[in-house]
Amino acid sequence: MFSHVCSLRVRYAETDQMGVVYYGNYATYFEVARVETMRALGFSYRQMEEDGVMLPVLELKTKYIRPARYDDELFITCRIPEMPATRIRFEYEVRNADGQLLNTAETTLVFVDMAKNKPCLMPENLKACFLPYFGP
Amino acid sequence: MFSHVCSLRVRYAETDQMGVVYYGNYATYFEVARVETMRALGFSYRQMEEDGVMLPVLELKTKYIRPARYDDELFITCRIPEMPATRIRFEYEVRNADGQLLNTAETTLVFVDMAKNKPCLMPENLKACFLPYFGP
Amino acid sequence: MFSHVCSLRVRYAETDQMGVVYYGNYATYFEVARVETMRALGFSYRQMEEDGVMLPVLELKTKYIRPARYDDELFITCRIPEMPATRIRFEYEVRNADGQLLNTAETTLVFVDMAKNKPCLMPENLKACFLPYFGP
Amino acid sequence: MFSHVCSLRVRYAETDQMGVVYYGNYATYFEVARVETMRALGFSYRQMEEDGVMLPVLELKTKYIRPARYDDELFITCRIPEMPATRIRFEYEVRNADGQLLNTAETTLVFVDMAKNKPCLMPENLKACFLPYFGP
Repeated sequence: MFSHVCSLRVRYAETDQMGVVYYGNYATYFEVARVETMRALGFSYRQMEEDGVMLPVLELKTKYIRPARYDDELFITCRIPEMPATRIRFEYEVRNADGQLLNTAETTLVFVDMAKNKPCLMPENLKACFLPYFGP
Repeated sequence: MFSHVCSLRVRYAETDQMGVVYYGNYATYFEVARVETMRALGFSYRQMEEDGVMLPVLELKTKYIRPARYDDELFITCRIPEMPATRIRFEYEVRNADGQLLNTAETTLVFVDMAKNKPCLMPENLKACFLPYFGP
Repeated sequence: MFSHVCSLRVRYAETDQMGVVYYGNYATYFEVARVETMRALGFSYRQMEEDGVMLPVLELKTKYIRPARYDDELFITCRIPEMPATRIRFEYEVRNADGQLLNTAETTLVFVDMAKNKPCLMPENLKACFLPYFGP
Repeated sequence: MFSHVCSLRVRYAETDQMGVVYYGNYATYFEVARVETMRALGFSYRQMEEDGVMLPVLELKTKYIRPARYDDELFITCRIPEMPATRIRFEYEVRNADGQLLNTAETTLVFVDMAKNKPCLMPENLKACFLPYFGP
Protein backbone atom coordinates (compact mmCIF):
# COMPACT_ATOMS: atom_id res chain seq x y z
CA MET A 1 0.00 0.00 0.00
CA PHE A 2 1.22 3.47 -0.83
CA SER A 3 -0.69 6.54 0.24
CA HIS A 4 -0.24 10.27 -0.22
CA VAL A 5 -2.25 13.38 0.65
CA CYS A 6 -2.32 16.41 -1.63
CA SER A 7 -4.36 19.57 -1.37
CA LEU A 8 -5.93 21.97 -3.80
CA ARG A 9 -8.29 24.90 -3.63
CA VAL A 10 -11.68 24.95 -5.36
CA ARG A 11 -11.79 27.40 -8.27
CA TYR A 12 -14.80 29.51 -9.20
CA ALA A 13 -14.81 27.86 -12.63
CA GLU A 14 -15.37 24.51 -10.92
CA THR A 15 -18.61 25.52 -9.19
CA ASP A 16 -22.04 25.34 -10.79
CA GLN A 17 -25.27 27.15 -10.13
CA MET A 18 -26.05 24.90 -7.16
CA GLY A 19 -23.19 26.82 -5.51
CA VAL A 20 -21.04 23.70 -5.16
CA VAL A 21 -18.37 21.89 -7.17
CA TYR A 22 -19.87 20.38 -10.33
CA TYR A 23 -19.87 16.59 -10.03
CA GLY A 24 -17.78 16.09 -13.17
CA ASN A 25 -14.90 18.21 -11.86
CA TYR A 26 -13.89 15.67 -9.22
CA ALA A 27 -12.38 13.58 -12.01
CA THR A 28 -9.85 16.37 -12.51
CA TYR A 29 -9.14 16.47 -8.78
CA PHE A 30 -8.46 12.72 -8.86
CA GLU A 31 -6.10 13.24 -11.81
CA VAL A 32 -4.17 15.83 -9.78
CA ALA A 33 -4.07 13.45 -6.80
CA ARG A 34 -2.77 10.54 -8.94
CA VAL A 35 -0.02 12.60 -10.48
CA GLU A 36 1.05 14.11 -7.15
CA THR A 37 1.04 10.64 -5.60
CA MET A 38 3.38 9.40 -8.34
CA ARG A 39 5.53 12.52 -7.89
CA ALA A 40 5.74 11.75 -4.14
CA LEU A 41 7.14 8.34 -5.16
CA GLY A 42 9.81 10.13 -7.18
CA PHE A 43 8.10 9.38 -10.50
CA SER A 44 7.03 11.76 -13.26
CA TYR A 45 3.87 10.88 -15.18
CA ARG A 46 4.86 13.47 -17.78
CA GLN A 47 8.21 11.77 -18.33
CA MET A 48 6.51 8.39 -18.66
CA GLU A 49 4.37 9.75 -21.51
CA GLU A 50 7.44 11.29 -23.12
CA ASP A 51 9.01 7.81 -22.88
CA GLY A 52 6.06 6.35 -24.79
CA VAL A 53 3.74 4.94 -22.12
CA MET A 54 0.39 6.52 -21.32
CA LEU A 55 -2.15 5.64 -18.68
CA PRO A 56 -5.77 6.03 -19.80
CA VAL A 57 -8.62 5.47 -17.35
CA LEU A 58 -10.67 2.27 -17.69
CA GLU A 59 -13.11 2.75 -14.87
CA LEU A 60 -14.26 5.43 -12.44
CA LYS A 61 -16.58 5.01 -9.48
CA THR A 62 -17.35 7.89 -7.19
CA LYS A 63 -19.75 8.65 -4.33
CA TYR A 64 -20.73 12.22 -3.52
CA ILE A 65 -21.26 12.54 0.21
CA ARG A 66 -21.07 16.27 1.00
CA PRO A 67 -20.60 19.16 -1.43
CA ALA A 68 -17.32 21.02 -1.80
CA ARG A 69 -17.68 24.79 -2.02
CA TYR A 70 -15.88 27.65 -3.70
CA ASP A 71 -12.49 28.50 -2.20
CA ASP A 72 -12.53 25.40 0.04
CA GLU A 73 -9.14 23.86 0.53
CA LEU A 74 -9.56 20.16 -0.21
CA PHE A 75 -7.32 17.35 1.02
CA ILE A 76 -7.23 14.29 -1.18
CA THR A 77 -5.88 11.05 0.18
CA CYS A 78 -4.83 8.83 -2.69
CA ARG A 79 -3.99 5.17 -2.08
CA ILE A 80 -2.53 2.56 -4.37
CA PRO A 81 -3.82 -0.58 -2.63
CA GLU A 82 -1.88 -3.25 -4.52
CA MET A 83 1.22 -3.61 -6.64
CA PRO A 84 0.30 -2.63 -10.22
CA ALA A 85 1.02 -4.86 -13.23
CA THR A 86 -0.62 -3.83 -16.54
CA ARG A 87 -3.28 -2.02 -14.55
CA ILE A 88 -3.09 0.35 -11.62
CA ARG A 89 -5.85 1.07 -9.17
CA PHE A 90 -6.15 4.27 -7.15
CA GLU A 91 -8.55 4.95 -4.27
CA TYR A 92 -9.43 8.48 -3.19
CA GLU A 93 -10.95 10.24 -0.21
CA VAL A 94 -11.65 13.95 -0.46
CA ARG A 95 -11.96 15.91 2.78
CA ASN A 96 -12.38 19.59 3.57
CA ALA A 97 -10.34 21.60 6.08
CA ASP A 98 -12.65 20.45 8.90
CA GLY A 99 -11.83 16.84 8.08
CA GLN A 100 -15.33 16.10 6.78
CA LEU A 101 -15.46 13.39 4.15
CA LEU A 102 -16.90 14.85 0.93
CA ASN A 103 -16.25 12.20 -1.65
CA THR A 104 -14.82 8.72 -2.12
CA ALA A 105 -13.76 7.25 -5.43
CA GLU A 106 -11.69 4.67 -7.19
CA THR A 107 -10.23 4.50 -10.66
CA THR A 108 -8.57 1.75 -12.66
CA LEU A 109 -6.06 2.74 -15.34
CA VAL A 110 -4.08 0.71 -17.84
CA PHE A 111 -0.51 1.14 -19.03
CA VAL A 112 -0.47 1.52 -22.82
CA ASP A 113 2.53 1.36 -25.13
CA MET A 114 1.86 4.39 -27.32
CA ALA A 115 3.88 3.12 -30.29
CA LYS A 116 1.98 -0.19 -30.41
CA ASN A 117 -1.28 1.20 -29.00
CA LYS A 118 -1.45 -1.93 -26.82
CA PRO A 119 -1.59 -2.53 -23.05
CA CYS A 120 1.82 -3.14 -21.54
CA LEU A 121 3.45 -3.83 -18.22
CA MET A 122 4.18 -1.00 -15.82
CA PRO A 123 7.54 0.61 -16.76
CA GLU A 124 10.53 -0.77 -14.83
CA ASN A 125 11.44 2.60 -13.33
CA LEU A 126 7.93 2.97 -11.88
CA LYS A 127 8.09 -0.60 -10.58
CA ALA A 128 11.33 0.30 -8.81
CA CYS A 129 9.55 3.20 -7.08
CA PHE A 130 6.84 0.84 -5.80
CA LEU A 131 9.06 -2.00 -4.59
CA PRO A 132 9.90 -0.48 -1.19
CA TYR A 133 6.18 -0.26 -0.43
CA PHE A 134 4.90 -3.57 -1.80
CA GLY A 135 7.87 -5.94 -1.79
CA PRO A 136 8.97 -7.89 -4.88
CA MET B 1 -38.47 1.78 -18.37
CA PHE B 2 -38.03 4.99 -20.30
CA SER B 3 -35.26 5.44 -22.83
CA HIS B 4 -34.11 8.28 -25.06
CA VAL B 5 -31.22 8.83 -27.46
CA CYS B 6 -29.58 12.23 -27.84
CA SER B 7 -26.52 13.23 -29.81
CA LEU B 8 -23.74 15.75 -29.42
CA ARG B 9 -20.49 16.54 -31.14
CA VAL B 10 -17.12 16.38 -29.35
CA ARG B 11 -15.58 19.83 -28.87
CA TYR B 12 -11.87 20.58 -29.12
CA ALA B 13 -11.95 21.84 -25.54
CA GLU B 14 -13.04 18.37 -24.44
CA THR B 15 -10.01 16.56 -25.85
CA ASP B 16 -6.73 16.16 -24.00
CA GLN B 17 -3.19 15.55 -25.17
CA MET B 18 -3.87 11.83 -25.67
CA GLY B 19 -5.96 13.08 -28.62
CA VAL B 20 -9.20 11.73 -27.14
CA VAL B 21 -11.99 13.02 -24.90
CA TYR B 22 -10.71 13.59 -21.35
CA TYR B 23 -12.27 11.02 -19.02
CA GLY B 24 -13.84 13.66 -16.77
CA ASN B 25 -15.82 15.23 -19.60
CA TYR B 26 -18.17 12.28 -19.97
CA ALA B 27 -19.90 13.44 -16.79
CA THR B 28 -21.00 16.53 -18.73
CA TYR B 29 -22.22 14.37 -21.61
CA PHE B 30 -24.30 12.35 -19.12
CA GLU B 31 -25.75 15.59 -17.74
CA VAL B 32 -26.80 16.61 -21.26
CA ALA B 33 -28.32 13.17 -21.82
CA ARG B 34 -30.29 13.29 -18.54
CA VAL B 35 -31.71 16.72 -19.26
CA GLU B 36 -32.64 15.84 -22.85
CA THR B 37 -34.26 12.62 -21.64
CA MET B 38 -36.40 14.62 -19.22
CA ARG B 39 -37.19 17.11 -21.99
CA ALA B 40 -38.30 14.20 -24.21
CA LEU B 41 -40.75 13.30 -21.41
CA GLY B 42 -42.14 16.83 -21.59
CA PHE B 43 -40.34 17.92 -18.41
CA SER B 44 -37.97 20.83 -17.85
CA TYR B 45 -35.14 20.32 -15.34
CA ARG B 46 -34.59 24.07 -15.36
CA GLN B 47 -38.20 24.71 -14.39
CA MET B 48 -37.95 22.15 -11.58
CA GLU B 49 -35.01 24.07 -10.10
CA GLU B 50 -36.92 27.34 -10.47
CA ASP B 51 -39.74 25.62 -8.57
CA GLY B 52 -37.34 24.81 -5.72
CA VAL B 53 -36.25 21.21 -6.32
CA MET B 54 -32.72 20.34 -7.40
CA LEU B 55 -31.21 17.00 -8.32
CA PRO B 56 -27.60 16.56 -7.18
CA VAL B 57 -25.65 13.44 -8.10
CA LEU B 58 -25.01 10.85 -5.37
CA GLU B 59 -23.07 8.29 -7.33
CA LEU B 60 -21.36 7.89 -10.70
CA LYS B 61 -19.92 4.71 -12.19
CA THR B 62 -18.46 4.66 -15.64
CA LYS B 63 -16.46 2.28 -17.84
CA TYR B 64 -14.30 3.59 -20.65
CA ILE B 65 -14.31 1.06 -23.47
CA ARG B 66 -13.13 2.94 -26.58
CA PRO B 67 -12.01 6.57 -26.84
CA ALA B 68 -14.17 9.30 -28.36
CA ARG B 69 -12.31 11.66 -30.69
CA TYR B 70 -12.54 15.30 -31.67
CA ASP B 71 -15.52 16.16 -33.89
CA ASP B 72 -17.07 12.69 -33.43
CA GLU B 73 -20.81 12.74 -33.30
CA LEU B 74 -21.78 10.75 -30.22
CA PHE B 75 -25.11 9.07 -29.57
CA ILE B 76 -26.05 8.66 -25.94
CA THR B 77 -28.78 6.26 -24.98
CA CYS B 78 -30.12 7.20 -21.57
CA ARG B 79 -32.43 4.85 -19.70
CA ILE B 80 -34.43 5.32 -16.53
CA PRO B 81 -34.79 1.67 -15.47
CA GLU B 82 -37.30 2.05 -12.63
CA MET B 83 -39.90 4.48 -11.36
CA PRO B 84 -38.10 7.13 -9.27
CA ALA B 85 -39.14 8.05 -5.74
CA THR B 86 -36.70 10.25 -3.76
CA ARG B 87 -33.90 8.98 -5.98
CA ILE B 88 -33.61 8.58 -9.71
CA ARG B 89 -31.23 6.29 -11.52
CA PHE B 90 -30.02 6.82 -15.08
CA GLU B 91 -28.05 4.35 -17.22
CA TYR B 92 -26.05 5.48 -20.24
CA GLU B 93 -24.45 3.99 -23.32
CA VAL B 94 -22.31 6.21 -25.51
CA ARG B 95 -21.78 5.13 -29.13
CA ASN B 96 -20.08 6.73 -32.10
CA ALA B 97 -21.54 7.13 -35.60
CA ASP B 98 -20.35 3.60 -36.49
CA GLY B 99 -22.40 2.23 -33.59
CA GLN B 100 -19.32 1.23 -31.60
CA LEU B 101 -19.84 1.25 -27.84
CA LEU B 102 -17.45 3.76 -26.25
CA ASN B 103 -18.65 4.10 -22.72
CA THR B 104 -21.24 2.79 -20.28
CA ALA B 105 -22.25 4.50 -17.08
CA GLU B 106 -24.86 4.90 -14.41
CA THR B 107 -25.68 7.70 -12.02
CA THR B 108 -27.95 7.98 -9.02
CA LEU B 109 -29.37 11.39 -8.15
CA VAL B 110 -31.55 12.59 -5.29
CA PHE B 111 -34.43 15.08 -5.32
CA VAL B 112 -33.68 17.88 -2.84
CA ASP B 113 -36.08 20.52 -1.56
CA MET B 114 -33.90 23.62 -1.90
CA ALA B 115 -35.75 25.62 0.78
CA LYS B 116 -35.32 22.89 3.41
CA ASN B 117 -32.06 21.51 1.98
CA LYS B 118 -33.51 18.01 2.52
CA PRO B 119 -34.23 15.06 0.24
CA CYS B 120 -37.82 15.02 -1.00
CA LEU B 121 -40.10 12.99 -3.21
CA MET B 122 -40.03 13.46 -6.96
CA PRO B 123 -42.27 16.42 -7.92
CA GLU B 124 -45.83 15.44 -8.88
CA ASN B 125 -45.56 16.91 -12.38
CA LEU B 126 -42.49 14.77 -13.09
CA LYS B 127 -44.27 11.72 -11.68
CA ALA B 128 -47.13 12.39 -14.08
CA CYS B 129 -44.66 12.32 -16.98
CA PHE B 130 -43.34 8.93 -15.88
CA LEU B 131 -46.67 7.21 -15.21
CA PRO B 132 -47.39 6.21 -18.84
CA TYR B 133 -44.05 4.38 -18.91
CA PHE B 134 -44.00 2.72 -15.50
CA GLY B 135 -47.59 2.41 -14.41
CA PRO B 136 -48.91 3.69 -11.06
CA MET C 1 -17.29 38.52 -45.74
CA PHE C 2 -18.68 35.15 -44.76
CA SER C 3 -21.14 34.74 -41.92
CA HIS C 4 -22.89 31.82 -40.27
CA VAL C 5 -25.20 31.36 -37.29
CA CYS C 6 -25.03 28.27 -35.10
CA SER C 7 -26.86 27.48 -31.90
CA LEU C 8 -26.09 25.56 -28.74
CA ARG C 9 -27.69 25.05 -25.37
CA VAL C 10 -25.99 26.05 -22.10
CA ARG C 11 -24.97 23.05 -20.01
CA TYR C 12 -25.16 22.89 -16.22
CA ALA C 13 -21.40 22.24 -16.14
CA GLU C 14 -20.88 25.61 -17.82
CA THR C 15 -22.61 27.64 -15.10
CA ASP C 16 -20.92 28.88 -11.96
CA GLN C 17 -22.21 29.86 -8.56
CA MET C 18 -23.33 33.27 -9.84
CA GLY C 19 -25.99 31.22 -11.66
CA VAL C 20 -24.70 32.24 -15.10
CA VAL C 21 -22.25 30.90 -17.66
CA TYR C 22 -18.67 31.15 -16.36
CA TYR C 23 -16.79 33.77 -18.36
CA GLY C 24 -14.09 31.32 -19.49
CA ASN C 25 -16.60 28.99 -21.14
CA TYR C 26 -17.42 31.40 -23.95
CA ALA C 27 -14.07 30.52 -25.52
CA THR C 28 -15.45 27.02 -26.06
CA TYR C 29 -18.63 28.45 -27.57
CA PHE C 30 -16.49 30.47 -29.99
CA GLU C 31 -14.56 27.31 -30.91
CA VAL C 32 -17.84 25.56 -31.72
CA ALA C 33 -18.96 28.56 -33.79
CA ARG C 34 -15.68 28.66 -35.76
CA VAL C 35 -15.79 24.97 -36.59
CA GLU C 36 -19.47 25.07 -37.58
CA THR C 37 -18.79 28.15 -39.74
CA MET C 38 -16.04 26.25 -41.55
CA ARG C 39 -18.34 23.23 -41.88
CA ALA C 40 -21.01 25.50 -43.43
CA LEU C 41 -18.36 26.44 -46.03
CA GLY C 42 -17.93 22.75 -46.80
CA PHE C 43 -14.64 22.51 -44.89
CA SER C 44 -13.63 20.16 -42.08
CA TYR C 45 -11.31 21.55 -39.42
CA ARG C 46 -10.70 18.00 -38.24
CA GLN C 47 -9.58 16.94 -41.71
CA MET C 48 -7.25 19.94 -41.93
CA GLU C 49 -5.49 18.82 -38.73
CA GLU C 50 -5.29 15.26 -40.05
CA ASP C 51 -3.67 16.77 -43.15
CA GLY C 52 -1.03 18.44 -40.97
CA VAL C 53 -2.23 22.01 -40.49
CA MET C 54 -3.49 23.27 -37.14
CA LEU C 55 -4.97 26.61 -36.19
CA PRO C 56 -3.97 27.82 -32.72
CA VAL C 57 -5.44 31.03 -31.30
CA LEU C 58 -3.18 34.09 -31.13
CA GLU C 59 -5.56 36.58 -29.62
CA LEU C 60 -8.97 36.69 -27.97
CA LYS C 61 -10.99 39.78 -27.05
CA THR C 62 -14.42 39.49 -25.56
CA LYS C 63 -17.01 41.76 -23.96
CA TYR C 64 -19.59 40.40 -21.57
CA ILE C 65 -22.81 42.38 -21.96
CA ARG C 66 -25.55 40.23 -20.43
CA PRO C 67 -25.24 36.84 -18.72
CA ALA C 68 -26.25 33.59 -20.38
CA ARG C 69 -28.17 31.21 -18.13
CA TYR C 70 -28.53 27.48 -17.73
CA ASP C 71 -30.52 25.77 -20.49
CA ASP C 72 -30.63 28.96 -22.59
CA GLU C 73 -30.44 28.32 -26.29
CA LEU C 74 -27.72 30.62 -27.61
CA PHE C 75 -27.32 31.80 -31.19
CA ILE C 76 -23.79 32.64 -32.23
CA THR C 77 -23.21 34.68 -35.34
CA CYS C 78 -19.67 34.10 -36.55
CA ARG C 79 -18.18 36.32 -39.26
CA ILE C 80 -14.96 36.05 -41.19
CA PRO C 81 -14.52 39.69 -42.17
CA GLU C 82 -11.62 39.41 -44.61
CA MET C 83 -9.93 36.82 -46.80
CA PRO C 84 -7.46 34.89 -44.60
CA ALA C 85 -3.80 34.43 -45.52
CA THR C 86 -1.51 33.01 -42.79
CA ARG C 87 -3.94 34.34 -40.21
CA ILE C 88 -7.70 34.16 -39.95
CA ARG C 89 -9.91 36.48 -37.96
CA PHE C 90 -13.34 35.56 -36.61
CA GLU C 91 -15.89 37.92 -35.06
CA TYR C 92 -18.70 36.66 -32.84
CA GLU C 93 -22.01 37.86 -31.48
CA VAL C 94 -23.83 35.71 -28.96
CA ARG C 95 -27.58 36.24 -28.56
CA ASN C 96 -30.27 34.47 -26.59
CA ALA C 97 -33.63 33.26 -27.91
CA ASP C 98 -35.11 36.75 -27.32
CA GLY C 99 -32.46 38.23 -29.61
CA GLN C 100 -30.70 40.04 -26.76
CA LEU C 101 -27.00 40.55 -27.32
CA LEU C 102 -25.05 38.77 -24.56
CA ASN C 103 -21.49 38.84 -25.74
CA THR C 104 -19.26 40.07 -28.56
CA ALA C 105 -15.80 38.77 -29.31
CA GLU C 106 -13.06 38.41 -31.85
CA THR C 107 -10.24 35.94 -32.23
CA THR C 108 -7.20 35.79 -34.46
CA LEU C 109 -5.75 32.39 -35.31
CA VAL C 110 -2.71 31.34 -37.31
CA PHE C 111 -2.27 28.44 -39.72
CA VAL C 112 0.62 26.26 -38.56
CA ASP C 113 2.36 23.52 -40.50
CA MET C 114 2.52 20.81 -37.83
CA ALA C 115 5.51 18.99 -39.35
CA LYS C 116 7.63 22.15 -39.41
CA ASN C 117 5.94 23.81 -36.42
CA LYS C 118 5.92 27.05 -38.44
CA PRO C 119 3.20 29.41 -39.61
CA CYS C 120 2.02 28.67 -43.14
CA LEU C 121 -0.48 29.88 -45.70
CA MET C 122 -4.09 28.82 -45.49
CA PRO C 123 -4.51 25.40 -47.20
CA GLU C 124 -5.56 25.60 -50.86
CA ASN C 125 -8.77 23.63 -50.31
CA LEU C 126 -9.88 26.09 -47.63
CA LYS C 127 -8.96 29.01 -49.89
CA ALA C 128 -11.17 27.49 -52.57
CA CYS C 129 -14.10 27.48 -50.12
CA PHE C 130 -13.59 31.18 -49.39
CA LEU C 131 -13.17 32.40 -52.98
CA PRO C 132 -16.89 32.65 -53.79
CA TYR C 133 -17.32 34.99 -50.82
CA PHE C 134 -14.23 37.17 -51.09
CA GLY C 135 -13.14 37.00 -54.70
CA PRO C 136 -9.61 36.12 -55.80
CA MET D 1 -0.05 49.72 -8.31
CA PHE D 2 -0.31 46.40 -6.53
CA SER D 3 1.27 43.28 -7.93
CA HIS D 4 1.43 39.64 -6.87
CA VAL D 5 2.84 36.43 -8.34
CA CYS D 6 1.11 33.10 -7.88
CA SER D 7 1.92 29.74 -9.38
CA LEU D 8 -0.05 26.72 -10.49
CA ARG D 9 0.63 23.51 -12.33
CA VAL D 10 -1.02 22.61 -15.64
CA ARG D 11 -3.47 19.73 -15.30
CA TYR D 12 -4.01 17.02 -17.90
CA ALA D 13 -7.66 18.06 -18.15
CA GLU D 14 -6.51 21.49 -19.29
CA THR D 15 -4.58 20.26 -22.32
CA ASP D 16 -6.14 19.61 -25.71
CA GLN D 17 -5.14 17.41 -28.61
CA MET D 18 -2.57 19.97 -29.79
CA GLY D 19 -0.67 18.85 -26.67
CA VAL D 20 -0.88 22.31 -25.08
CA VAL D 21 -3.20 24.17 -22.72
CA TYR D 22 -6.55 24.87 -24.43
CA TYR D 23 -6.89 28.59 -25.04
CA GLY D 24 -10.09 28.90 -23.03
CA ASN D 25 -8.49 27.55 -19.85
CA TYR D 26 -6.33 30.62 -19.31
CA ALA D 27 -9.46 32.44 -18.13
CA THR D 28 -9.52 30.06 -15.17
CA TYR D 29 -5.83 30.71 -14.50
CA PHE D 30 -6.55 34.45 -14.45
CA GLU D 31 -9.40 33.85 -12.00
CA VAL D 32 -7.00 31.99 -9.69
CA ALA D 33 -4.47 34.81 -10.03
CA ARG D 34 -7.07 37.49 -9.20
CA VAL D 35 -8.29 35.69 -6.12
CA GLU D 36 -4.77 34.98 -4.86
CA THR D 37 -3.82 38.62 -5.47
CA MET D 38 -6.74 39.74 -3.33
CA ARG D 39 -5.81 37.15 -0.70
CA ALA D 40 -2.25 38.56 -0.66
CA LEU D 41 -3.85 41.93 0.15
CA GLY D 42 -5.58 40.30 3.11
CA PHE D 43 -8.95 40.19 1.35
CA SER D 44 -11.26 37.24 0.73
CA TYR D 45 -13.24 37.25 -2.51
CA ARG D 46 -15.39 34.47 -1.07
CA GLN D 47 -16.26 36.58 1.94
CA MET D 48 -17.14 39.53 -0.28
CA GLU D 49 -19.69 37.38 -2.13
CA GLU D 50 -21.08 36.11 1.17
CA ASP D 51 -21.44 39.80 2.14
CA GLY D 52 -23.52 40.41 -0.98
CA VAL D 53 -21.09 41.85 -3.54
CA MET D 54 -20.00 39.88 -6.58
CA LEU D 55 -17.50 40.74 -9.28
CA PRO D 56 -18.48 39.59 -12.76
CA VAL D 57 -16.12 40.06 -15.69
CA LEU D 58 -16.96 42.77 -18.25
CA GLU D 59 -14.05 42.38 -20.61
CA LEU D 60 -11.21 39.97 -21.33
CA LYS D 61 -8.31 40.49 -23.74
CA THR D 62 -5.57 37.94 -24.05
CA LYS D 63 -2.59 37.27 -26.31
CA TYR D 64 -1.19 33.78 -26.70
CA ILE D 65 2.55 34.00 -27.22
CA ARG D 66 3.96 30.55 -26.43
CA PRO D 67 2.04 27.42 -25.45
CA ALA D 68 1.92 26.08 -21.90
CA ARG D 69 2.36 22.33 -21.62
CA TYR D 70 1.13 19.58 -19.34
CA ASP D 71 2.71 19.56 -15.87
CA ASP D 72 4.41 22.94 -16.47
CA GLU D 73 4.57 25.09 -13.40
CA LEU D 74 3.23 28.48 -14.43
CA PHE D 75 3.94 31.78 -12.70
CA ILE D 76 1.26 34.41 -13.09
CA THR D 77 2.05 38.01 -12.30
CA CYS D 78 -1.18 39.86 -11.61
CA ARG D 79 -1.20 43.65 -11.39
CA ILE D 80 -3.90 46.06 -10.34
CA PRO D 81 -2.69 49.17 -12.13
CA GLU D 82 -5.01 51.77 -10.66
CA MET D 83 -7.22 52.30 -7.63
CA PRO D 84 -10.57 50.61 -8.33
CA ALA D 85 -13.92 52.38 -7.96
CA THR D 86 -16.99 50.57 -9.37
CA ARG D 87 -14.68 48.71 -11.70
CA ILE D 88 -11.40 46.92 -11.16
CA ARG D 89 -8.82 46.16 -13.79
CA PHE D 90 -6.29 43.32 -13.59
CA GLU D 91 -3.31 42.76 -15.88
CA TYR D 92 -1.64 39.36 -16.18
CA GLU D 93 1.60 37.89 -17.44
CA VAL D 94 1.98 34.11 -17.51
CA ARG D 95 5.50 32.70 -17.54
CA ASN D 96 6.91 29.20 -17.35
CA ALA D 97 9.69 27.99 -15.03
CA ASP D 98 12.31 29.20 -17.55
CA GLY D 99 10.87 32.70 -17.31
CA GLN D 100 9.53 32.62 -20.88
CA LEU D 101 6.49 34.80 -21.42
CA LEU D 102 3.57 32.60 -22.55
CA ASN D 103 0.58 34.85 -22.32
CA THR D 104 -0.48 38.39 -21.47
CA ALA D 105 -4.00 39.46 -20.63
CA GLU D 106 -6.19 42.01 -19.00
CA THR D 107 -9.67 41.85 -17.54
CA THR D 108 -12.12 44.46 -16.32
CA LEU D 109 -14.62 43.48 -13.65
CA VAL D 110 -17.46 45.37 -12.01
CA PHE D 111 -18.62 45.35 -8.39
CA VAL D 112 -22.29 44.35 -8.25
CA ASP D 113 -24.63 44.62 -5.28
CA MET D 114 -26.28 41.19 -5.42
CA ALA D 115 -29.46 42.27 -3.60
CA LYS D 116 -30.10 45.16 -6.01
CA ASN D 117 -28.43 43.50 -9.01
CA LYS D 118 -26.79 46.88 -9.73
CA PRO D 119 -23.18 48.06 -10.03
CA CYS D 120 -21.85 49.48 -6.77
CA LEU D 121 -18.69 50.97 -5.32
CA MET D 122 -15.87 48.72 -4.17
CA PRO D 123 -16.59 47.57 -0.58
CA GLU D 124 -14.96 49.72 2.12
CA ASN D 125 -12.94 46.84 3.56
CA LEU D 126 -11.40 46.14 0.15
CA LYS D 127 -10.69 49.86 -0.32
CA ALA D 128 -8.86 49.83 3.02
CA CYS D 129 -6.62 47.01 1.73
CA PHE D 130 -5.73 49.06 -1.36
CA LEU D 131 -5.05 52.39 0.34
CA PRO D 132 -1.45 51.62 1.39
CA TYR D 133 -0.61 50.91 -2.27
CA PHE D 134 -2.50 53.66 -4.05
CA GLY D 135 -2.95 56.43 -1.51
CA PRO D 136 -6.32 58.01 -0.70
